Amino acid sequence: MLKHHLITPGPTPVDPDVLLAMARPMIHHRGAAFKEIFQGVRDGLRWLFQTQSDVLTLSCTGTGAFEAAIINFTRREDTLVAIGGGKFGERWGEIAQAYGMNVIAMNVEWGQHATPEALAKVLEANPDVSMVTLCASETSTGVYHPVKELLEVVREKTNALIAVDAITALGVHELPMDEWGIDIVVAGSQKAFSLPPGLGFVAVSERAWERADEADHPRYYLDLRKEKKAQSKNQTAFTAAVSLVIGLEVVLGKMRAEGLENMIARHAMLAKATREGVVALGLETFASRPANSVTTVQVPGLDPSVLVSKMKADGVFMAGGQDHLKDSTFRIGHLGFYDESDILTALCALERALQSVGHDFIPGSGVSAAQKVFLENP
Amino acid sequence: MLKHHLITPGPTPVDPDVLLAMARPMIHHRGAAFKEIFQGVRDGLRWLFQTQSDVLTLSCTGTGAFEAAIINFTRREDTLVAIGGGKFGERWGEIAQAYGMNVIAMNVEWGQHATPEALAKVLEANPDVSMVTLCASETSTGVYHPVKELLEVVREKTNALIAVDAITALGVHELPMDEWGIDIVVAGSQKAFSLPPGLGFVAVSERAWERADEADHPRYYLDLRKEKKAQSKNQTAFTAAVSLVIGLEVVLGKMRAEGLENMIARHAMLAKATREGVVALGLETFASRPANSVTTVQVPGLDPSVLVSKMKADGVFMAGGQDHLKDSTFRIGHLGFYDESDILTALCALERALQSVGHDFIPGSGVSAAQKVFLENP
Repeated sequence: MLKHHLITPGPTPVDPDVLLAMARPMIHHRGAAFKEIFQGVRDGLRWLFQTQSDVLTLSCTGTGAFEAAIINFTRREDTLVAIGGGKFGERWGEIAQAYGMNVIAMNVEWGQHATPEALAKVLEANPDVSMVTLCASETSTGVYHPVKELLEVVREKTNALIAVDAITALGVHELPMDEWGIDIVVAGSQKAFSLPPGLGFVAVSERAWERADEADHPRYYLDLRKEKKAQSKNQTAFTAAVSLVIGLEVVLGKMRAEGLENMIARHAMLAKATREGVVALGLETFASRPANSVTTVQVPGLDPSVLVSKMKADGVFMAGGQDHLKDSTFRIGHLGFYDESDILTALCALERALQSVGHDFIPGSGVSAAQKVFLENP
Repeated sequence: MLKHHLITPGPTPVDPDVLLAMARPMIHHRGAAFKEIFQGVRDGLRWLFQTQSDVLTLSCTGTGAFEAAIINFTRREDTLVAIGGGKFGERWGEIAQAYGMNVIAMNVEWGQHATPEALAKVLEANPDVSMVTLCASETSTGVYHPVKELLEVVREKTNALIAVDAITALGVHELPMDEWGIDIVVAGSQKAFSLPPGLGFVAVSERAWERADEADHPRYYLDLRKEKKAQSKNQTAFTAAVSLVIGLEVVLGKMRAEGLENMIARHAMLAKATREGVVALGLETFASRPANSVTTVQVPGLDPSVLVSKMKADGVFMAGGQDHLKDSTFRIGHLGFYDESDILTALCALERALQSVGHDFIPGSGVSAAQKVFLENP
């Protein structure tokens, strides 16, 4: 018998209640039943993003949503500063480049977090920047950047719009959009929402909307003006991904029942337990400032792909390292529909894999270290 | 007790087997299990599109897929001829316009089909056109254009790429991509696939790929070169809409079991029965050349929105007329997971609604006319 345990940083497991809701008979996306669901969804999203602004739901994944965030609020001649430090932070610069913008890629070593000081230097050299993009929780490295501090630097030095990739940060780290003055927040369904992939979200401040009419990038499917108009009437501009929206309604209800503070605290606890478990096994965590969403584990002297394969054979599916981190790291996901047992499952599989490759550690020390964290957070 | 019957031209009802498959626990989009599913899906799509070319699966709805079809194979300075005649045919011209292309909108009266003669005139006046777009089955009017004949004119008069919107035509009308020499075919999951909305498909011929490197429209999420590279390895460039892809695998298996010829014949029979039922009730069909996908019904002297509301109150959900046809028509969908009973359900509700507004007809004549068609096609 082999149970399948998905411990990846998205897609994450989906709550059976949500799976069943999505398996209900199809409804039409222009009918009253859908409109009622979508109104509830819009309310729930505003609650989750902590904003009074509209949160637009798009039928695309996170990259499409971030592309929309860039091209709807900038001009081709504009300068965009992309804070790097990982695959996703760098991707937002690539998008702007594809649209012919002047891109200043702020290099950050993978595994390190961006510092306010370094950002200040970049912005002082480019005071006329129109948009700064930041991947709050970098899924490729497991780093959580000091978002609030970085935002303050942008405000202080420039008049740029701030677009935050919160794809693995929303619901996982504190990120109050309005309170922190974030202009655009992007998210995706397959992360803390614990839904299947297929929906992207873009929350847009009034300050950003003021720049929408000047934006001159060609766009149609990702034209957010169309979506704003339609969604204010509880419709989508193009066909909605109906079943995912139905699942979203259920998920948002469950998130509200848990409470945002509790949800963030749960993620913080699971992340801490994962890190302590990993360190107890003689391995290292990679991130200078670890995220609550994903833990990137360094395995000096070991082949991470062998460990990942061994765990997979045991039914526990983790993600390998991304890009050039492939040969030195693997990733444990803990954002979304996860609890203490899932972390013990991950560490149990990891201990077995480590034993199989002859790694020297005290059997049980990983799960024991995690369990201590749980007992401290009853 | 009220049963919910969805008789709209997409989203269409979803087979319970497919709903259950999509409700299976989530898997990771970079794992071996997904790759195996995706390989089967790619094979199945080539079968359905009747092509040796790659059929790319995108996480977006039909409009996004058609935008990709235009912007990946044309240049900004190019001329595009958009064959109109309905909301969707015209939309493809709007997309090209949004990208700054020179668009020749070939006007076709809504409800009428484009004729090869009229197209020949347009193309003779614009022999350097780079792309011709055609909505095979126009969902807004219920017209099926004479695709094969129109294609021949394009081939004869120009060197343009032909992009066919087959969103409500694929699996419903004969449309052999390779045999007919179509360069690009676009489809969407919520139509004959009978899946929830959220996936778009773009099949691309070698001839079209040869123009991909010259295409100069900015694009990232909809960059098909990235998708071609990834999908040839049974991966998607960005996160796949996993649950929909799992449903797609099941659907394609069911389609192959039914057989393409039988599937098209079923749609033709359901469409014919619908038309004969409607006419027997003293109403009129709108399309000059009716599609097998959707029947647009004209109701002279009656308010179609009253009929649609009355049917909805009876649990039978049809679509209203589109745009300026709203006050004179409504639409009966019969593409996808539909059988004879569904058509009788639709006509039964329609007869009740007509009776409630005092329309003069012989009770039972609609369902009887449809049933005769079924008995002729045992």
